[in-house]
Amino acid sequence: MTIVVQNIERADPAIVSSLGKTGVATVHEAQGRSGLMNSTIRPIWPGARVAGSAVTISAPPGDNWMIHVAIEQLREGDVLVLAPTAPCDMGYFGDLLATSAMARGCKALVIDAGVRDVLDLKEMGFAVWSSAISAQGTVKETLGSVNVPVTCAGAIVHPGDVIVADDDGVCVVPRQDAAAVHSAAERRTAQEEEKRKRLASGELGLDIYDMRPRLQDKGLNYV
Amino acid sequence: MTIVVQNIERADPAIVSSLGKTGVATVHEAQGRSGLMNSTIRPIWPGARVAGSAVTISAPPGDNWMIHVAIEQLREGDVLVLAPTAPCDMGYFGDLLATSAMARGCKALVIDAGVRDVLDLKEMGFAVWSSAISAQGTVKETLGSVNVPVTCAGAIVHPGDVIVADDDGVCVVPRQDAAAVHSAAERRTAQEEEKRKRLASGELGLDIYDMRPRLQDKGLNYV
Amino acid sequence: MTIVVQNIERADPAIVSSLGKTGVATVHEAQGRSGLMNSTIRPIWPGARVAGSAVTISAPPGDNWMIHVAIEQLREGDVLVLAPTAPCDMGYFGDLLATSAMARGCKALVIDAGVRDVLDLKEMGFAVWSSAISAQGTVKETLGSVNVPVTCAGAIVHPGDVIVADDDGVCVVPRQDAAAVHSAAERRTAQEEEKRKRLASGELGLDIYDMRPRLQDKGLNYV
Amino acid sequence: MTIVVQNIERADPAIVSSLGKTGVATVHEAQGRSGLMNSTIRPIWPGARVAGSAVTISAPPGDNWMIHVAIEQLREGDVLVLAPTAPCDMGYFGDLLATSAMARGCKALVIDAGVRDVLDLKEMGFAVWSSAISAQGTVKETLGSVNVPVTCAGAIVHPGDVIVADDDGVCVVPRQDAAAVHSAAERRTAQEEEKRKRLASGELGLDIYDMRPRLQDKGLNYV
Amino acid sequence: MTIVVQNIERADPAIVSSLGKTGVATVHEAQGRSGLMNSTIRPIWPGARVAGSAVTISAPPGDNWMIHVAIEQLREGDVLVLAPTAPCDMGYFGDLLATSAMARGCKALVIDAGVRDVLDLKEMGFAVWSSAISAQGTVKETLGSVNVPVTCAGAIVHPGDVIVADDDGVCVVPRQDAAAVHSAAERRTAQEEEKRKRLASGELGLDIYDMRPRLQDKGLNYV
Amino acid sequence: MTIVVQNIERADPAIVSSLGKTGVATVHEAQGRSGLMNSTIRPIWPGARVAGSAVTISAPPGDNWMIHVAIEQLREGDVLVLAPTAPCDMGYFGDLLATSAMARGCKALVIDAGVRDVLDLKEMGFAVWSSAISAQGTVKETLGSVNVPVTCAGAIVHPGDVIVADDDGVCVVPRQDAAAVHSAAERRTAQEEEKRKRLASGELGLDIYDMRPRLQDKGLNYV
Repeated sequence: MTIVVQNIERADPAIVSSLGKTGVATVHEAQGRSGLMNSTIRPIWPGARVAGSAVTISAPPGDNWMIHVAIEQLREGDVLVLAPTAPCDMGYFGDLLATSAMARGCKALVIDAGVRDVLDLKEMGFAVWSSAISAQGTVKETLGSVNVPVTCAGAIVHPGDVIVADDDGVCVVPRQDAAAVHSAAERRTAQEEEKRKRLASGELGLDIYDMRPRLQDKGLNYV
Repeated sequence: MTIVVQNIERADPAIVSSLGKTGVATVHEAQGRSGLMNSTIRPIWPGARVAGSAVTISAPPGDNWMIHVAIEQLREGDVLVLAPTAPCDMGYFGDLLATSAMARGCKALVIDAGVRDVLDLKEMGFAVWSSAISAQGTVKETLGSVNVPVTCAGAIVHPGDVIVADDDGVCVVPRQDAAAVHSAAERRTAQEEEKRKRLASGELGLDIYDMRPRLQDKGLNYV
Repeated sequence: MTIVVQNIERADPAIVSSLGKTGVATVHEAQGRSGLMNSTIRPIWPGARVAGSAVTISAPPGDNWMIHVAIEQLREGDVLVLAPTAPCDMGYFGDLLATSAMARGCKALVIDAGVRDVLDLKEMGFAVWSSAISAQGTVKETLGSVNVPVTCAGAIVHPGDVIVADDDGVCVVPRQDAAAVHSAAERRTAQEEEKRKRLASGELGLDIYDMRPRLQDKGLNYV
Repeated sequence: MTIVVQNIERADPAIVSSLGKTGVATVHEAQGRSGLMNSTIRPIWPGARVAGSAVTISAPPGDNWMIHVAIEQLREGDVLVLAPTAPCDMGYFGDLLATSAMARGCKALVIDAGVRDVLDLKEMGFAVWSSAISAQGTVKETLGSVNVPVTCAGAIVHPGDVIVADDDGVCVVPRQDAAAVHSAAERRTAQEEEKRKRLASGELGLDIYDMRPRLQDKGLNYV
Repeated sequence: MTIVVQNIERADPAIVSSLGKTGVATVHEAQGRSGLMNSTIRPIWPGARVAGSAVTISAPPGDNWMIHVAIEQLREGDVLVLAPTAPCDMGYFGDLLATSAMARGCKALVIDAGVRDVLDLKEMGFAVWSSAISAQGTVKETLGSVNVPVTCAGAIVHPGDVIVADDDGVCVVPRQDAAAVHSAAERRTAQEEEKRKRLASGELGLDIYDMRPRLQDKGLNYV
Repeated sequence: MTIVVQNIERADPAIVSSLGKTGVATVHEAQGRSGLMNSTIRPIWPGARVAGSAVTISAPPGDNWMIHVAIEQLREGDVLVLAPTAPCDMGYFGDLLATSAMARGCKALVIDAGVRDVLDLKEMGFAVWSSAISAQGTVKETLGSVNVPVTCAGAIVHPGDVIVADDDGVCVVPRQDAAAVHSAAERRTAQEEEKRKRLASGELGLDIYDMRPRLQDKGLNYV
């Protein structure tokens, strides 16, 4: 029931890094529009762009004990992902835990709950996507699990999956799919670049995508 | 049912521009406290101040096809206004559509739904007021209408109405009322300037507005 | 029923000032995790850090008359705290009232309702924590009270209590407890500094706090 | 600004009554899926089915004065529709106002705010669709308007429009369209009756609506 | 910090009982519109009407240990009131705890969190007002307090205060004010009875309350 | 991407039926507090108790085409489970689809979106747990999938899993665990029966569960 899985597999760091540069919207499209967390998860400071391997935490509401356990499992380039077992907006995580996580090479936290010390976290450059900001402290009384599959903000996360996060939100790429999604994302980015130029020159999407016949078929009336 | 109205009338550009400088709070007061959208509509980046003529879109939830149709109807200084026909937080609009809209002279988007690529939109200087940020993509399957009256975030918007938007939210000025509202707003701004000086010097609103007798009549007790 | 209490007692300004530097998360812990407002109360611009003595306002929904009454009661270093008697997101407060409050030495407003002119407020350096931003104006028709105990966003505030606010939210320190909480916060800050160094060096919380035996007792399994 | 329009036009009572028997879902479809209020508006007791002519009220948040004014304008078969000018959950309406409205022939209230005395209202058989239930009382200080167009829970209501309401929610039929919508609804009901029989006998919608070829064209895979 | 106050004082049972018959809306008015809980607190089954003396519980989110402690403090006619120290929708209370509470004479529970076994609770006739229904179980790890003042759903409750609850929500009457509020409520009920008769006969509130002159003074226009 | 899995495996009908009689709260406890859907999913009429095998649907927001496809896959005793790919409150399902589903032996629908014709559904005895009630119709334009794993209201559902639902909400029992959970639930029910008797006789949980020593150890103070 309450387990810690050690030595999880992770995706190729080069691919992880490249997915981070691509960004959430393109990655999400590239993998067929799956894996997106709910829009209730927001960055606590704007402008952060991160990709990393998920170390997952299933924790009781209001209890952050398992974060200490999870930090021991972190490796360079990981992202902590915490899903509470019931809705909770308390502040599970602050500057001390961020200091500890950063010392282990962790880049960011994704949490469907609250965090605190947000000004410190911003100054430290530690990126967080959360559903709340709250100074309310938690206890250390009840076990949870580390590196088990979790459902976080509507998305399933397996340990070692790639977490891509920026101002648009958070997307989960299954570890096994990382290379394929990366390739698809590269293609999509290239195609978009060409379309961007045509659109910037004033050409219309109606013409680029040849939408006019289908709009007419569906019965659109111009008056 | 699904129509595109072409060649809508717009308000005098000089008045539109001036309303933008006045700002939402004053314009809203100047027109008798009507036309304000719900406070659930927020800017995706702080500091933008915009006024423009509304090109309206009524679109199904999760379907952004009509945005392509609407972009063809845009003229210099317009603002796109999209109201979904049911609540929806999906990302209808991103950097490609913004590129296309800007190429037609569009200044901003107001949408009671989600947008994506928000970091790009900020860097492009394209202003957006939305009810959500989400990378979740939409389809292009079902028609809607362009330049019909819509109810967006609780406010009625007719095509060609003036949209005024800043960090306080979004206000709709009916096209026919634009000149009168502008005059009223100018008067209000002048009056506020004088009051601001008196208040800054330490004079009290209780005295400036002669509130003490009425407070006493109503029965306020000082203890 | 509708009273204005004059000449309330306030805490020692040196202690108030020091609590502001300590910040919400530490102060909240130092007083035993009480007095925190709900996480629905957020700063209207990031980075503000304030502590001051509460001048409280109980006001009807959509009626800001009592703010004018309260401003007369303000002294250097005070913070206005407004609790509406029913949920309301209207804009009770804008740049004119901020001008007047600042002229009386007021530092900030905490309000479980809306404010407007937020760009002006930011430029003036007037800090606000609110549950909404809205240009919707209020009336001046119904009395409320000033400097009575109020429940604001779930926290009880007595006039003269110390309000501590930053990007983590808002915490209320009872006036009588200010000195004791200040001492406890100082101790806590010192302890955290030492822990921060150990964590930054890579030492684990599991070891620093000696958690491993208790985790084992509870039945945590490593696999 | 604050007006009471007397002697509004109403739709044919026979058509109004028939629309009520048809119900919200069918009427909404029959008029092309327009006019539906948000799903936040719910009946305060289950099982009520009502149709009537709208007497509209635009009222300030927390102020029910205009309901007294509106009651004088009621005629047999009318439905009161109240839209507050800002979000509000206070109890605008209770058993005394219901007694008065019923004495004028009013059937129901639709309100994007709160009501109280809900047990009494149920026992009186007075139907209410509201966004909240709250005992919180309102004041009588600020004017609003009666029988002007309002936006209530996302739907535009003109005085005299037909309000259809049941357990599915509330739909607004423009007065001028009532006869045409009624005819369309009758046709739809007849068609549904036939489909219901076929479906009840085990025939599939896939076959009745000939969906299989189009599903195959779109690329659906059976595995 | 974590205490159990034994042998609290309670109000006169005859007055408590009579307040329950009067109901929430009238009691709330009779005590000057104070003490009402937020409208997020709803009965789990309709039609219950209860008044009793509050035995209060301050509990951590997701931890129901203190309910067992509180049950020992219950006396005939009491109502349990539980306020979590942070927002929580978990199921703190079900049929076993209700069985135990009923065996001690408890009438009802008011909880700003979740409950479960709601069908059983209804069949047992145990009344509950809650902010959620959830089967999610809680732990028994962290202490809270019993019979201390709590803020529950926006209302302050002292142990021994009178809780009045029905389909309109929950109102708190301070123990010391119970007799006075009871008298005021009786007067109000008598007055309302007379008004109800006049309104039922078709007389208008506009005339009964002599509102027409004041409406005219304020500038209401009939058109 | 868009597939329909036919001939899924289901759990033993006798076990499914017995789990339904046990109810959500006990089943959820018996399987270690996993599988519960969020408390936003509520029955559309009170008193229904259902258990069945899940036929899952992943559908776009506002598009109910896949329900027709899923109905063909239904067998006696199944429960439809629909998870939209983005939040949506539209009415996917009404009396015609219920007629069709019932003709195939379906017992109930669980949907993280809206339904309509709720009065008809109640009269037909078709049970629904949904996150909204709305007459707003959907389209049939975009494919989804049937009988793939979905995340519905925070819970993972594999096709053939056992859905247990009553007034407390909805719980998912993995198909492979059904027999073991059933046994554990039986044991739990038996234990609870004995505790219920002791509690009903006035014995306290403090004594039955021997809580007093541990409360004392933790530092609880009686005053």
